[in-house]
Amino acid sequence: MGIRLGDNQYGKAEVRLVRVTRDTPVHEIEDVCVTSQLRGDMESVHTVGDNSNCLATDTQKNTVYAKAKENGGIGAIEDFALLLAQHFVSEHDYIHGARQEIHSYGWNRIDTANGPHDHSFVRAGSETRTTVVTKDGDQEWVVSGFDGLTVLKSTGSEFHGYPKTHYTTLPETTDRILATDITARWRYIGTGLDWDKTYASVRSQLLEAFATTHSLALQQTLYTMGRTVLENHPEIAEIKFSMPNNHHFLVDLSPFGLDNPNEVFFAADRPYGKIEATVERDDAPAAGRAWESIPGFV
Amino acid sequence: MGIRLGDNQYGKAEVRLVRVTRDTPVHEIEDVCVTSQLRGDMESVHTVGDNSNCLATDTQKNTVYAKAKENGGIGAIEDFALLLAQHFVSEHDYIHGARQEIHSYGWNRIDTANGPHDHSFVRAGSETRTTVVTKDGDQEWVVSGFDGLTVLKSTGSEFHGYPKTHYTTLPETTDRILATDITARWRYIGTGLDWDKTYASVRSQLLEAFATTHSLALQQTLYTMGRTVLENHPEIAEIKFSMPNNHHFLVDLSPFGLDNPNEVFFAADRPYGKIEATVERDDAPAAGRAWESIPGFV
Amino acid sequence: MGIRLGDNQYGKAEVRLVRVTRDTPVHEIEDVCVTSQLRGDMESVHTVGDNSNCLATDTQKNTVYAKAKENGGIGAIEDFALLLAQHFVSEHDYIHGARQEIHSYGWNRIDTANGPHDHSFVRAGSETRTTVVTKDGDQEWVVSGFDGLTVLKSTGSEFHGYPKTHYTTLPETTDRILATDITARWRYIGTGLDWDKTYASVRSQLLEAFATTHSLALQQTLYTMGRTVLENHPEIAEIKFSMPNNHHFLVDLSPFGLDNPNEVFFAADRPYGKIEATVERDDAPAAGRAWESIPGFV
Amino acid sequence: MGIRLGDNQYGKAEVRLVRVTRDTPVHEIEDVCVTSQLRGDMESVHTVGDNSNCLATDTQKNTVYAKAKENGGIGAIEDFALLLAQHFVSEHDYIHGARQEIHSYGWNRIDTANGPHDHSFVRAGSETRTTVVTKDGDQEWVVSGFDGLTVLKSTGSEFHGYPKTHYTTLPETTDRILATDITARWRYIGTGLDWDKTYASVRSQLLEAFATTHSLALQQTLYTMGRTVLENHPEIAEIKFSMPNNHHFLVDLSPFGLDNPNEVFFAADRPYGKIEATVERDDAPAAGRAWESIPGFV
Repeated sequence: MGIRLGDNQYGKAEVRLVRVTRDTPVHEIEDVCVTSQLRGDMESVHTVGDNSNCLATDTQKNTVYAKAKENGGIGAIEDFALLLAQHFVSEHDYIHGARQEIHSYGWNRIDTANGPHDHSFVRAGSETRTTVVTKDGDQEWVVSGFDGLTVLKSTGSEFHGYPKTHYTTLPETTDRILATDITARWRYIGTGLDWDKTYASVRSQLLEAFATTHSLALQQTLYTMGRTVLENHPEIAEIKFSMPNNHHFLVDLSPFGLDNPNEVFFAADRPYGKIEATVERDDAPAAGRAWESIPGFV
Repeated sequence: MGIRLGDNQYGKAEVRLVRVTRDTPVHEIEDVCVTSQLRGDMESVHTVGDNSNCLATDTQKNTVYAKAKENGGIGAIEDFALLLAQHFVSEHDYIHGARQEIHSYGWNRIDTANGPHDHSFVRAGSETRTTVVTKDGDQEWVVSGFDGLTVLKSTGSEFHGYPKTHYTTLPETTDRILATDITARWRYIGTGLDWDKTYASVRSQLLEAFATTHSLALQQTLYTMGRTVLENHPEIAEIKFSMPNNHHFLVDLSPFGLDNPNEVFFAADRPYGKIEATVERDDAPAAGRAWESIPGFV
Repeated sequence: MGIRLGDNQYGKAEVRLVRVTRDTPVHEIEDVCVTSQLRGDMESVHTVGDNSNCLATDTQKNTVYAKAKENGGIGAIEDFALLLAQHFVSEHDYIHGARQEIHSYGWNRIDTANGPHDHSFVRAGSETRTTVVTKDGDQEWVVSGFDGLTVLKSTGSEFHGYPKTHYTTLPETTDRILATDITARWRYIGTGLDWDKTYASVRSQLLEAFATTHSLALQQTLYTMGRTVLENHPEIAEIKFSMPNNHHFLVDLSPFGLDNPNEVFFAADRPYGKIEATVERDDAPAAGRAWESIPGFV
Repeated sequence: MGIRLGDNQYGKAEVRLVRVTRDTPVHEIEDVCVTSQLRGDMESVHTVGDNSNCLATDTQKNTVYAKAKENGGIGAIEDFALLLAQHFVSEHDYIHGARQEIHSYGWNRIDTANGPHDHSFVRAGSETRTTVVTKDGDQEWVVSGFDGLTVLKSTGSEFHGYPKTHYTTLPETTDRILATDITARWRYIGTGLDWDKTYASVRSQLLEAFATTHSLALQQTLYTMGRTVLENHPEIAEIKFSMPNNHHFLVDLSPFGLDNPNEVFFAADRPYGKIEATVERDDAPAAGRAWESIPGFV
């Protein structure tokens, strides 16, 4: 019997970086949060505190900032994450793999009487675009997605036909509010893609599929959303969702002599439904380590 | 020497209410969070636990939901808060005053290939519109505003000429990033106004003033924003701001042989500057109890 | 008609400071978060961006750190806040007042086989001790308290006898769970007190009064808690509370053939009751500006 | 080429349950948050919205509450999670697996002049005990742990000997503050254990190992903590950690003519180090699906 080190990775989390492009008076801004983690010959740092293979997390942070300058900006977050991963693995023989996660925050120009402003911006929504690049030796995987896109249908959602058990009290309904926060991650096939264009397309298709699907279950809506994306994007191998069912309960106004024909709802916090699923291509290349440290998806 | 009850108020906080207007297939949604609090002859509930004047907080919650139906919807949040305050004070002789706070959350229709969808919506941004109506007997005050409008200027901001003391190390600058989260509250004169139209106008003027002011200090930007609103809105007596200075520090890339001409910044979390100020009309009616329980503004 | 600057204050918020006392191998740690704000001749920084009276917020931050060294540590947070306020007002003739807020976080020594460890600590609970010192010229006020002390009584709480109106549906009860997060602030008379000793005593009395009061209303529990403190502490002029009623609803298990004699509860998030009140001494000195910028209390 | 459903699970998240044991006047309370998720023949609910195998999430919630009564309380959270998982899988032939996650919150009795109170409690710390039971057909795995145990060493921590690269600026140190929030999860071998006793022992050993390890790297401290647990608990197959390095930076007070011999520190928020690792027994039974949906650990 022995005790040993198992899987491990380490790095610097949540490096906040804003990059301004100021080649002309019309500035551009890129606003990201980078988490860099590395894997490699890290046995002795764990077992005896020998740091000779431990590229300091502070050095990883410096590298993120320096590369933003050397690279002439961030560009697509997928490309920047690939660049960082390749740098760490190629430069240090004791580093065999990397996980580079980047979140990016959107900004719009402020509208003024003279049109969109040159260098003044307002934060666009609460949604965050994200990518995780995993590199293991020569292999590279890119998983992208977003968090926090909150949507609601005020009708066009039913729920009935479910099993009635000893513990069932829920009444069936043919008209309910359906509300969720879409969190999605999709795995790309390959790494030489037009990331920004694909992202915009996927996001738009997910919203449209949510809107136009007459829902019999949140699971069905989710699957339709995923299928739509895969049908239109051969460069995507699979897509995973984690979607709460944000319950809106019809308020009983009858004690006050009032009817309530699906008009006044209580928006509940907890508990909430939680629906998680993968929609995948049956001939997709294997996922390898792509999903290994992407939390919260099945 | 005696011990006695001082100022007090009580009620139900954060009543989450979504109201759907479904008169036609093109639905409208209103999404609000209501905090109802009451003041009155509440001595004996505190001193001896006699609840005969204690309109239950559960009853206040029921009233919020019932009024959303009786009133045919929410409408402007200022009007709905006034309606609730007036209801509580007029219906119960032991209730002398009320504080009704409402936050509202924006939603946009989802764009589809067939145009904006009839009954599917996506949350609009992280900004929250808010109002606090205070009623004391016959007097009523309305204070409205918003939270969480995050803005940034990538240039057009200087900071110099401040006192140099024993504890000063900050270098002067003629070009820095200026970033803040605008939290604003303004007090209206009177109660019979077009709240939605004024809100949209104030929000737009604040953004434009932020964008177009060449800033020598965040205080100056703030004051200009407030002055602009008061100059254009005689129905507003005063406006208060609480604005962090969200520091963006230029990263020193010289150890890596790189210059950094205001391109790569570290966006810091804490500490942050905190600028609070009121801009007011010198002939405005007295504020009375308007600001009494609106936290976080001087 | 003119537009002018009203009340204002500015400074550096949430300066995180950990101070280690290492005179002996048995270390002590002090862990605080300081928000420094100043008031004074600040008209021109707002109106024209003239910073000649604007002691930089960065300088305020430096001062906090330097004073922690010069003072030989933090000591009672009330004394450290007074020291900072006095420094800023006495050193700069354009500074007329100050608001210094300090939160402190508790740590316990880690227990080991050899007893409490010399220099290893574990965070003690989620409760935060806090003080706000307000200085206006020669006048000084100290308001102290804490946030986030969560308590619950599993019985010994009733609620009945409240008005039954058109909108009342709540059933009366003679046995319910009473749960709240105690947030308290008390104003001291004078500034030369044993702050740490008083704090410990007030905290202990509040907990005991909560525990031993048979409650007919949360208001009554609150008032009893405040009265107990004032009866035992002549150096306290008044105490304010903001206490949610964290509802625990009995789950209806009858559809499953089960009774539920106050055993199984659903702990709800929102909405919640919100009870705010002041208990005060009728001969206390006037509050002056003590409460002016302490948000969230009536 | 075809598109299909991949891995999936669904259920009710964050069912908040407080259970009072009131057999005697000395009450006991159990305070938990349960997330129930199920796996099984769920193809048709996703592809065509046929809910005939979709045990409603509302029914799962009801089951949690009913079982708390039928079972005479919660007991060890591991046993309650196993009970729920076994119920769902055994009762419904279309359910093949379950994931039951439970968090529990600690409470202490309030101390009064008459000793610990019978039915009044105060929340104990911010730490949360947690378990995830995964059931797949007849197989069962139990992974337990905790979140949010915040610890700090004011000395006894060094960091040097790391690679010096083009992007390295960090100075070496033989004396620094080491601070982290311990998040740990360990996988049990078997299911018939004394969960509460083991939990208390593991927690205590982790704290002691953190305290008494002279640290050359956070990785080394982590590994020592894990090894200590495995050496003392043959019933544990492996333990995983995710631990931030909560940086405390020495403040440069030299501009003010002050030295700072490791006394005054700035406690930073972001970025932070992030160290993740597994310590495992080389002869442990395979993990199977135990870790499959436990986010945030490698």
